[in-house]
Amino acid sequence: MKDSQIAQAISQLANELRGVEFLFSSQEVSEYGSDYTEDLYFPPTAVCFPTTTQEVSLVMKFCFDHNISVFTRGAGTGLSGACLSVSEGLVLSTKKLNRIVNIDTQNLTATVESGVVNAHLKEAVEAVGLYYPPDPASQGSCSIGGNLAHGAGGPRAVKYGITRDYVLNLEVVLPNGQIIWTGANTLKNSTGFSLTHLMVGSEGMLGIITQAVLKLIPKPTQELLMVAAFADLSDCARAVNQVLLSKYKPCAIELMEKSGVEISMVATQTAFPTHPSAEAYLLFAFDGFEGEDLFAQAEGIFGILDNHNALDILPSPNADTSAAWWKVRRAIGETVKQVSPYKEEDTVVPRSAMPGLLKKVKEIGDQYGFQSVCYGHAGDGNLHVNILKNDLSDEYWHHEIPKAITEIFEYCKSVGGTISGEHGIGLVQAPYLPIVMGDAHFQLFRGIKETFDPKRILNPGKWLG
Amino acid sequence: MKDSQIAQAISQLANELRGVEFLFSSQEVSEYGSDYTEDLYFPPTAVCFPTTTQEVSLVMKFCFDHNISVFTRGAGTGLSGACLSVSEGLVLSTKKLNRIVNIDTQNLTATVESGVVNAHLKEAVEAVGLYYPPDPASQGSCSIGGNLAHGAGGPRAVKYGITRDYVLNLEVVLPNGQIIWTGANTLKNSTGFSLTHLMVGSEGMLGIITQAVLKLIPKPTQELLMVAAFADLSDCARAVNQVLLSKYKPCAIELMEKSGVEISMVATQTAFPTHPSAEAYLLFAFDGFEGEDLFAQAEGIFGILDNHNALDILPSPNADTSAAWWKVRRAIGETVKQVSPYKEEDTVVPRSAMPGLLKKVKEIGDQYGFQSVCYGHAGDGNLHVNILKNDLSDEYWHHEIPKAITEIFEYCKSVGGTISGEHGIGLVQAPYLPIVMGDAHFQLFRGIKETFDPKRILNPGKWLG
Repeated sequence: MKDSQIAQAISQLANELRGVEFLFSSQEVSEYGSDYTEDLYFPPTAVCFPTTTQEVSLVMKFCFDHNISVFTRGAGTGLSGACLSVSEGLVLSTKKLNRIVNIDTQNLTATVESGVVNAHLKEAVEAVGLYYPPDPASQGSCSIGGNLAHGAGGPRAVKYGITRDYVLNLEVVLPNGQIIWTGANTLKNSTGFSLTHLMVGSEGMLGIITQAVLKLIPKPTQELLMVAAFADLSDCARAVNQVLLSKYKPCAIELMEKSGVEISMVATQTAFPTHPSAEAYLLFAFDGFEGEDLFAQAEGIFGILDNHNALDILPSPNADTSAAWWKVRRAIGETVKQVSPYKEEDTVVPRSAMPGLLKKVKEIGDQYGFQSVCYGHAGDGNLHVNILKNDLSDEYWHHEIPKAITEIFEYCKSVGGTISGEHGIGLVQAPYLPIVMGDAHFQLFRGIKETFDPKRILNPGKWLG
Repeated sequence: MKDSQIAQAISQLANELRGVEFLFSSQEVSEYGSDYTEDLYFPPTAVCFPTTTQEVSLVMKFCFDHNISVFTRGAGTGLSGACLSVSEGLVLSTKKLNRIVNIDTQNLTATVESGVVNAHLKEAVEAVGLYYPPDPASQGSCSIGGNLAHGAGGPRAVKYGITRDYVLNLEVVLPNGQIIWTGANTLKNSTGFSLTHLMVGSEGMLGIITQAVLKLIPKPTQELLMVAAFADLSDCARAVNQVLLSKYKPCAIELMEKSGVEISMVATQTAFPTHPSAEAYLLFAFDGFEGEDLFAQAEGIFGILDNHNALDILPSPNADTSAAWWKVRRAIGETVKQVSPYKEEDTVVPRSAMPGLLKKVKEIGDQYGFQSVCYGHAGDGNLHVNILKNDLSDEYWHHEIPKAITEIFEYCKSVGGTISGEHGIGLVQAPYLPIVMGDAHFQLFRGIKETFDPKRILNPGKWLG
């Protein structure tokens, strides 16, 4: 245990809250020092695991009175380092706030504590014929609270929207321990400034989300996948636009660069319909209630892809194959990480600017001498750019590559895009935020922060300093 | 012209901005003294009509320097009095900020100035095969800026969502004249606190929206309407829930009380399929790309309604009949107004609580002796409660009826609802806001207001004082 005043104060808190688990030893807290972001490591002073909103409130009251920084942590699957404790303080894990409080089959809503894992919610609602669409790649382990705090998306956003679109109401513990509900359990709400939407994407800097009322929809019963290979990225992007202008409504349109598919296939030992001349692949998913309708959609889109010079177009013959294709897609992020240290940039641009962005990334890569693996959500213009360290020197990695990233983000801005589509700013995107936000924005951000957290105890050291 | 210091200062501004139209005479400004809310009348000191963002910025710089209150006004179709100039100051009309800047058929977005009329945008995008779904009852005259400022909805929200769901990026003039874009022109954005979503529903109290980048979708080519009559409101509500649990996806499910339909039919001299035993009607709309699919949906829902004791279920035979049915529905609000002075409450509850709410409204009506006409969006739990003055005394109307409204809103809160689904708080809902928002909320609201508008010159005198 660290022998600082802060650590001592947290010990006192642990003594006062006997029912709440606290970790203090270096060994125990170490696993809470990193998330899924690059190779960052910031071991916290201590970690606590409240099990109720009331306990979160008591922790916050104490920390407010004692000026102790609090870093809220969901499942630790974030890709921006937003949850990391970059200075002394208490990591508040929502791991034990993991109850599905209610599934309302009449109103198609679920009330969940913020530590509930995305996939657990999905399973629970699917058991009663309902569906919670937001599906980040880490859905098997990420928490709803983390999804909310980062404004998470996922492949199905192209048809169903993102986490933000499914939030009706949030229970939030404010830095001083006060508990509020931000809105109402209604599908529409125009009652005061939207605190609900302000909390979404606020990265643990304004309050601690303890419960969420989420919208559900009837569960689609059918899914069909289709893969198309392209030799030319512009063809590929034009095909996507044409599909989205059509009457067909795929639930996912995923873009994968050749290298990403290859790395993921090897790492997962999973088959995927590759083509020797392909530069990129599109993975289409269709869902609905009638197999016939899905086939009609796939057929219609087949025609569009064919008209845009697809090399090969293959519908999945069965569920096992579909699962394999999804596996290859979902594993790209993690498997690229195994190849080399990397930096992942969550670029997002108007959809039609995606081929230009990809071309620009490759040009900048040539110029700076780095390899990149790109993949992402073609229907949303959200391209994950993974820059691999390979044999670049540490010096070059830490000092030159950020210049390359700056160039990539400046290009995104120039075409109407921005620096994060669904990962958030956190720690690693913080230096780049001024590319898209000026003094006026920062002044507003600081004022909002000051309003919620006058003592600046919630998640300090990130993009607001 | 009023001979106050403020009026003199505004005259000075008008002199400095020769290119901008200003109105000063009592006669000219009088039409800007009211909106569609009840019988409120607050004639402004002056009205100005900037034609560019730059002119809005210059107006604000001047008003900021001279501490002049500014009341932004769209088309004046609001139902909460939010745009009214309740104290001396300048009404800034967005009427001449009416350019559709760009319709991007590749990215399915439109960039519009905030004074563009909702229906004009619809027409323009439909001409190129695209669609902007949000459809407030006043869509023929209301402005996009007003829709944004109030978080407006409309019948099609049940399938397509509300105004908020179609906003990607906003150009905003801050009270000091600074111009910012709140986000990026992308479908996803997780870059800092969402200023975009904070502006939606902010009722002209944080900044002036001058341009919006909006999301479009491919235009459905087919529409089908169906009316069902019910003798029992609980049957009616249960039928709605069952429909929304099914695989069918109507684009609108409108509930109309018998009296609303009757008043509207007489006022508009339009036919509607009434039933002598009906207490309420449901109007279903289906849209899509295949007539066959729409008929299949209508047939499926016919079965559900039939199982829930619908008295009569009638699909519309042709477009003229559909237009007539929509006309009767859309005109209820306005025509009720012609019968008597009224107060309209924009109640919203979890959908399944709607029959209970309607019952409660009638009970409270019996107790206080008022007639009410209710209608609204059954798929969203958003019930417009129109309380008619009829022969109630002014004294009773102004002092006793608010107590009845308080009881209605307290009931909404007790079942998880709130006091406005899509009209906003403005002036007339302001006294009731504390029913659903406590001190902690108001403190946050005030801090946000202070951050954006430290001199409190934007839309003073409403729900934040």
